[in-house]
Amino acid sequence: MAWFDLSEAELRSYTPTVREPQDFDAFWADTLADAHAHPLLLDVSPVDTPLKRLTVHDVAFAGYAGQAVRAWLIAPRDAPSSVPCVVEYIGYGGGRGLPSDWLLYASAGYAHLVMDTRGQGSVWRRGDTPDPDPAPLGGQHPGFLTRGLLDPRTYYYRRVFTDAARAVQAARALPGVDAARIAVAGGSQGGGIALATAALMPDVSALLADVPFLCHFERAVAITNAQPYAELTGYLRTHRDRIERVFETLAYFDGVSFARRVKAPALFSVGLMDEVCPPSTVFAAFNGVRSAKDIAVYPYSGHEAGEGPHALRRLAFLEETWRTPRAMEVDA
Amino acid sequence: MAWFDLSEAELRSYTPTVREPQDFDAFWADTLADAHAHPLLLDVSPVDTPLKRLTVHDVAFAGYAGQAVRAWLIAPRDAPSSVPCVVEYIGYGGGRGLPSDWLLYASAGYAHLVMDTRGQGSVWRRGDTPDPDPAPLGGQHPGFLTRGLLDPRTYYYRRVFTDAARAVQAARALPGVDAARIAVAGGSQGGGIALATAALMPDVSALLADVPFLCHFERAVAITNAQPYAELTGYLRTHRDRIERVFETLAYFDGVSFARRVKAPALFSVGLMDEVCPPSTVFAAFNGVRSAKDIAVYPYSGHEAGEGPHALRRLAFLEETWRTPRAMEVDA
Amino acid sequence: MAWFDLSEAELRSYTPTVREPQDFDAFWADTLADAHAHPLLLDVSPVDTPLKRLTVHDVAFAGYAGQAVRAWLIAPRDAPSSVPCVVEYIGYGGGRGLPSDWLLYASAGYAHLVMDTRGQGSVWRRGDTPDPDPAPLGGQHPGFLTRGLLDPRTYYYRRVFTDAARAVQAARALPGVDAARIAVAGGSQGGGIALATAALMPDVSALLADVPFLCHFERAVAITNAQPYAELTGYLRTHRDRIERVFETLAYFDGVSFARRVKAPALFSVGLMDEVCPPSTVFAAFNGVRSAKDIAVYPYSGHEAGEGPHALRRLAFLEETWRTPRAMEVDA
Amino acid sequence: MAWFDLSEAELRSYTPTVREPQDFDAFWADTLADAHAHPLLLDVSPVDTPLKRLTVHDVAFAGYAGQAVRAWLIAPRDAPSSVPCVVEYIGYGGGRGLPSDWLLYASAGYAHLVMDTRGQGSVWRRGDTPDPDPAPLGGQHPGFLTRGLLDPRTYYYRRVFTDAARAVQAARALPGVDAARIAVAGGSQGGGIALATAALMPDVSALLADVPFLCHFERAVAITNAQPYAELTGYLRTHRDRIERVFETLAYFDGVSFARRVKAPALFSVGLMDEVCPPSTVFAAFNGVRSAKDIAVYPYSGHEAGEGPHALRRLAFLEETWRTPRAMEVDA
Amino acid sequence: MAWFDLSEAELRSYTPTVREPQDFDAFWADTLADAHAHPLLLDVSPVDTPLKRLTVHDVAFAGYAGQAVRAWLIAPRDAPSSVPCVVEYIGYGGGRGLPSDWLLYASAGYAHLVMDTRGQGSVWRRGDTPDPDPAPLGGQHPGFLTRGLLDPRTYYYRRVFTDAARAVQAARALPGVDAARIAVAGGSQGGGIALATAALMPDVSALLADVPFLCHFERAVAITNAQPYAELTGYLRTHRDRIERVFETLAYFDGVSFARRVKAPALFSVGLMDEVCPPSTVFAAFNGVRSAKDIAVYPYSGHEAGEGPHALRRLAFLEETWRTPRAMEVDA
Amino acid sequence: MAWFDLSEAELRSYTPTVREPQDFDAFWADTLADAHAHPLLLDVSPVDTPLKRLTVHDVAFAGYAGQAVRAWLIAPRDAPSSVPCVVEYIGYGGGRGLPSDWLLYASAGYAHLVMDTRGQGSVWRRGDTPDPDPAPLGGQHPGFLTRGLLDPRTYYYRRVFTDAARAVQAARALPGVDAARIAVAGGSQGGGIALATAALMPDVSALLADVPFLCHFERAVAITNAQPYAELTGYLRTHRDRIERVFETLAYFDGVSFARRVKAPALFSVGLMDEVCPPSTVFAAFNGVRSAKDIAVYPYSGHEAGEGPHALRRLAFLEETWRTPRAMEVDA
Repeated sequence: MAWFDLSEAELRSYTPTVREPQDFDAFWADTLADAHAHPLLLDVSPVDTPLKRLTVHDVAFAGYAGQAVRAWLIAPRDAPSSVPCVVEYIGYGGGRGLPSDWLLYASAGYAHLVMDTRGQGSVWRRGDTPDPDPAPLGGQHPGFLTRGLLDPRTYYYRRVFTDAARAVQAARALPGVDAARIAVAGGSQGGGIALATAALMPDVSALLADVPFLCHFERAVAITNAQPYAELTGYLRTHRDRIERVFETLAYFDGVSFARRVKAPALFSVGLMDEVCPPSTVFAAFNGVRSAKDIAVYPYSGHEAGEGPHALRRLAFLEETWRTPRAMEVDA
Repeated sequence: MAWFDLSEAELRSYTPTVREPQDFDAFWADTLADAHAHPLLLDVSPVDTPLKRLTVHDVAFAGYAGQAVRAWLIAPRDAPSSVPCVVEYIGYGGGRGLPSDWLLYASAGYAHLVMDTRGQGSVWRRGDTPDPDPAPLGGQHPGFLTRGLLDPRTYYYRRVFTDAARAVQAARALPGVDAARIAVAGGSQGGGIALATAALMPDVSALLADVPFLCHFERAVAITNAQPYAELTGYLRTHRDRIERVFETLAYFDGVSFARRVKAPALFSVGLMDEVCPPSTVFAAFNGVRSAKDIAVYPYSGHEAGEGPHALRRLAFLEETWRTPRAMEVDA
Repeated sequence: MAWFDLSEAELRSYTPTVREPQDFDAFWADTLADAHAHPLLLDVSPVDTPLKRLTVHDVAFAGYAGQAVRAWLIAPRDAPSSVPCVVEYIGYGGGRGLPSDWLLYASAGYAHLVMDTRGQGSVWRRGDTPDPDPAPLGGQHPGFLTRGLLDPRTYYYRRVFTDAARAVQAARALPGVDAARIAVAGGSQGGGIALATAALMPDVSALLADVPFLCHFERAVAITNAQPYAELTGYLRTHRDRIERVFETLAYFDGVSFARRVKAPALFSVGLMDEVCPPSTVFAAFNGVRSAKDIAVYPYSGHEAGEGPHALRRLAFLEETWRTPRAMEVDA
Repeated sequence: MAWFDLSEAELRSYTPTVREPQDFDAFWADTLADAHAHPLLLDVSPVDTPLKRLTVHDVAFAGYAGQAVRAWLIAPRDAPSSVPCVVEYIGYGGGRGLPSDWLLYASAGYAHLVMDTRGQGSVWRRGDTPDPDPAPLGGQHPGFLTRGLLDPRTYYYRRVFTDAARAVQAARALPGVDAARIAVAGGSQGGGIALATAALMPDVSALLADVPFLCHFERAVAITNAQPYAELTGYLRTHRDRIERVFETLAYFDGVSFARRVKAPALFSVGLMDEVCPPSTVFAAFNGVRSAKDIAVYPYSGHEAGEGPHALRRLAFLEETWRTPRAMEVDA
Repeated sequence: MAWFDLSEAELRSYTPTVREPQDFDAFWADTLADAHAHPLLLDVSPVDTPLKRLTVHDVAFAGYAGQAVRAWLIAPRDAPSSVPCVVEYIGYGGGRGLPSDWLLYASAGYAHLVMDTRGQGSVWRRGDTPDPDPAPLGGQHPGFLTRGLLDPRTYYYRRVFTDAARAVQAARALPGVDAARIAVAGGSQGGGIALATAALMPDVSALLADVPFLCHFERAVAITNAQPYAELTGYLRTHRDRIERVFETLAYFDGVSFARRVKAPALFSVGLMDEVCPPSTVFAAFNGVRSAKDIAVYPYSGHEAGEGPHALRRLAFLEETWRTPRAMEVDA
Repeated sequence: MAWFDLSEAELRSYTPTVREPQDFDAFWADTLADAHAHPLLLDVSPVDTPLKRLTVHDVAFAGYAGQAVRAWLIAPRDAPSSVPCVVEYIGYGGGRGLPSDWLLYASAGYAHLVMDTRGQGSVWRRGDTPDPDPAPLGGQHPGFLTRGLLDPRTYYYRRVFTDAARAVQAARALPGVDAARIAVAGGSQGGGIALATAALMPDVSALLADVPFLCHFERAVAITNAQPYAELTGYLRTHRDRIERVFETLAYFDGVSFARRVKAPALFSVGLMDEVCPPSTVFAAFNGVRSAKDIAVYPYSGHEAGEGPHALRRLAFLEETWRTPRAMEVDA
């Protein structure tokens, strides 16, 4: 898609102002408080797989409203008693799939907790976690981006981000995991969730956000026709009278606002030909991060961005980060 | 799309065997009984519109599980005290929109009740009815066709068809409506809902099913890549281990099975180049109808099929049907 | 298609200079004089339809060169003796279709005259009016936009705009129509024709121009690849030596020039993602209108723009306009 | 497009029955008689071009209804006093363009008369011949295939085929042309016109029909979505009530009927992956030819079929044909 | 792509006759003899990666004509002294990429040798092995499928299949590998190479061929337009005179002929909606295998077929196969 | 594609700085010296064709590294003893095809030498010249644009440009050719080769470069997604670590650098809607030419640009140029 967005020089200094509700922090504090009011109900069952060099557990924990969220825990067999853990969130439409889909971090010697995304996992990798929606406001455009969009309290990603924060809590409670060394990670939607989680759980020790989705919504719908942002466009085209209300809701979920609140060292990646998550939306978030940070720019890549080579870069970043862990307080 | 399906001659005699669960009738009897156990809670509020020659009411009634379903009632101003009523269901993705979107039947002198489709109405015409889904089984592919697909009791269309049957009941209770002359009607998804409703409420006095969706699922996914059947294909591709289970669920919702249970005179339409609802799936249903019936075949049309000319044919069919109403018993 | 044109702020102040021939007004005065030299030959035949609440007439009148142009007259049954009338022109490729396709204005209590577009009506709604072309200059690109393009006197839209002006005259002569309250209306090509007609018949009492086509041709072909402007691009690509001549012809037909001559209150609409009639071409016309005016901007819409909601806005505009009619002189 | 039609074995024996009106021959005899009643008005003007080795003339002659049709005559400079002549018709949408577009036959030593196709020549190579249409019946779908389609007497191709027959007459009257050795030739639409002309002017001495268009219309619209047959599909989709009438008109213009009347030796070509002119429509015509004939089958080609290699094959066919000219009578 | 090929029942008994040259076995015996005449020159260098739980080696060995071929050897750290080894070949266009791209088999406890495909690896995963082509016959269509296609001795896949056979030899010579338990594996092009290799090195102990490419060429180009088979179509369309010669070359490389020569137990997979490697081409090969065999059929999948779930099935197949290894002789 | 690049005014003054290696001239001097060290081995064999008015010869000469390159020599029969010669290079993917594909220049009275492009000619017109590549560096993306891209000495276009310079030398040695009047010509890739050749052989007497490819690579990949520049994008996306190295190689082959070295009068052409060779890349080269020059701008054309009308313009340019030949020295 050639370079359809700002030039790289412009991107590197692009710091747009986005809407941010005055009660942004209060909204999320309340949301997390509600979640923490439920017991974590951590359930960890060993799974027998042909992956003889790894241990695999089927994990469940209480996410938003105490609802069960599923995850895989994959770790090296015969690991030391306490290893760092990468909590990973998944790209749009996919679910946690099978343990054999997730071999990178365990092969590097880490524990790896892969959280299912509620309701998703029927497009390209199966999921196992439903998204109960007992009192929806209005209808929805196909996809998840418009679910409950009329109110920040009912918006789908409020539930997802809460699950994600709880996944960090779950990771810390897992046997064999070094609770002081938790990274949050993901690509695309997974990157957007990781970014939000790093803000909501500021004592995680690293953030890995590849081509993050869910950043700078107003620019995204203005500049790209690609799915899944196009779900928003479709909704706004149909609900012409709700445009303001929609952006008011989305303002509670914008990665640009979360970015400012991240405290962990962060590694981002971006493809300059990415129409799915346009580079200006990624840089709008990245440029707002105030902690130690780096971004891998792939000038001729689309949404696939760094692929395998960037996986190695992520591992190098973790190795460096965890060699000299910063002081932190573990919550709960 | 040229003629990609059976030839017209083959279509006219195409009567495939489809799965039909032994407890098909029991399932639906139980479902309707549950619904009827809730009071109808009919709420009819006049709406002021610039359509001065019509009366418009915003209608709500208790559908599946007593949940409120919205509809528009549009009727000629200064109508006789009792007019027949067309209950119309909507195509996939659309909602009830605005009263000005629905002028045909009132212009012909009938009352017209346009039922919102729960959850839908964010793709091409806005809807106002949510679809509460408090205990979903598993996730869903974007769209509605796979919502709750793992069990017939939780499947989305169980709720929709129940709403549709209740809409007939609501129509009969409306002031100024001749309860003995109720037609069910719709195109595409609306045609599939109308077909199911004519079977569930066999004393309606006419069925108008244009290019009906939701018929002969196994053939549909085998012969077309077009949306929305492709939602099923996507789901089955992802959930390779649930194919049998999915078709077991769908067997409770197949228009071919409903067709055999229709007792009202029926008018269908079909486009021989329709990739969305392939002609063999439409004929599989039509050929199963045992009541008086007719089908308008549009050989060079796709899913748009008969458009305006067929609207007149529908009106002619209603005029003829309602001139000599058959004896019927009104339920409840 | 995202926002591919100027920003909304730029659009609102966009007033480009377009070519306007010195004899623009003389050309059209002569053209109308020629047309008015033919008797109107108004022919109004009642049509029996199943639309029992409406009266329908098949109308013919002498348009350009006295050639017969067909139209539908649709009105409320039992209307007052004199009602305002909306003269509507049709989008590109469609014809007048069937009376049941046109129910909005009659449902609002107005008379509605729907003019066929000569030659069109074989793409998406049938038409009944041929376009005799006895002495064409050169050939034509498929479609109507390049018919007779080598000379303003032979250009297709000279005939169409003349028909449209005559349709206003016909409307005024119709029984039951209040000749002082005639609105011209249409979307896309219909909007472009309505705009031209409001300039040619400046005493019409309202102009409704939705996403008007035929405005600011030079920018249109420079900014969009979409049909039907792409017919021009195809013609210019083939006839490399006629570029200047083509734009000289089109200068007699540009909505931007007509806009300056409109005297009636006007309501426009525009979709900011409209590639068919790009927003800058619409604003170029709208910004030139000097009478009372308003524009409905649909930021996330394409060419469908306002759809149902905008229909209501049009009715509200008419209601307000016709409540306090401005003084005017009726021609002939 | 892979092999989407019949297998090659089936194609080679495919001889479908097509509609043929009883008065087919009378219709064409009358049509040609009308044309021949006009003087030929042959006008041959030398053109100065940089093609120094060739002579070029701008030719005009009276075609249908005596209307002027343009052509190029291109011949080798310093040619013998009498050379054979190839009369070529052009593919859909193109015009005669420039003399430098037509160098093959003159380079082989023949005279070459390239006839403009009336009205066409604004899509990919410019034309110079208008198509006056003074009394059209109904409207038309964009393109030429539906122009005047409601009556064989007003159908566009009646005018074109008449022009084409007159072009043969013109060729015979040209100075330096051997009137006994005239070939008719063309590809796609040009092939269809050549085929019809070889039937209407049975004493031409060769027919070269590459991937001919305008054959077996009913199958064509049933099997392909590609343009330009899709113009017919679009028309029939819109004019649902005229299907029979349309095919009745087309029956006077079907290459399958013309094929049976060809008396000259014929060379056809076909691409088995041709979606524009599907192979079964080509073989339906070819298999009906009763004179000496051959067909070049290009199994992995689409509509481009034989390209350069087939040009050589055509030249070889002409060389062989004209080495031993058959006895013939020259008309008029 | 729906079900565009034979039905599943037909597929299961589909055993077409394909061309097979009389000297097929001699050709390959000579080819391998030539290769074996070169020393293997196995070069195994440890690579330091962040994958701390695995050992990684960069491997080179002498392939076709003694040319160096690169591979990755990935194995569990602290593995037993002798483990089975999976030799994997790569899909079309990709290269060996990075060791972190290949974690499955090592995680299961096996050694894993991933062979680069000469010349490839610039489309979706980088490769490091060139394809010297010192004396090419004629040109090539973009891609690799037509490289050297005019003679079986110069055809690209002669070099690739030879490399692949040599990779098995290399695997057997690797330290820590149980030479009696070598599986060949791959998907798409990798599946086609694995299939050929299992025939050329019949004493391998398992064959895993997912959606294999390079089977039943004549049907493939007849039934699909998808890349990469479409490279062949493009070549044949351009080189109309070489069709026979091309298929004569390809007959030495057809998976259907190799399938009959496989002696190892085999697991195939196929997607019934796979347009890239149509199911009939896969079954044509599978049905010819005479050893113990199984095929996983994914009815609603395209070329992605079994994905993660099938990876587990492959591991289960290997576990079962290697639990009771069949007697075999190791070559050289 | 509308006007997606700079405006025409901006284009006319667009003179970007492109990378140019310090040893650019030395690199090419060495390259040509190497080539000239081989004997030309000119081989000219008469070919019998049905093109009786022309003489055709199959030509071979020693190109890069003395490898045989094929060409057609086409000339008027009975030409004067010494005529000017146009050396033409071919567009991407095509080969020299057949003599009958190349009739323009001979029809104008010139000799015409059409050089095959090594390796190409399997996509749209067959070629007969292989591209031996005995020691490739790394792999290649399908197509030719990335062949040997890691080093300027191994890059594919080094071989092609050398062949092209040698073709000029061959033309001068041909019997009947006026060695002082040689033009180099071509469109797209052919235009890029002609441009490079006019710089490498500065005493050619005319340059005709239509929509030249291979100019301003860095802008091209940034602004267009179209093939064949997209081959570079694909390569860079896959080989993320070689971006700098790739552009360093390409800097030896950039038409912008060659343009500055052209001494012959030059005629360019450009289409302002050309996505294949975007207008800014063409103007970047054209604006750098310092000799007499002209450019034909086709504002509504894509890559087809001037077609037939521009062919005449080229002939006129040659006629004028050769009427008053400038003084020149013939090499070797």
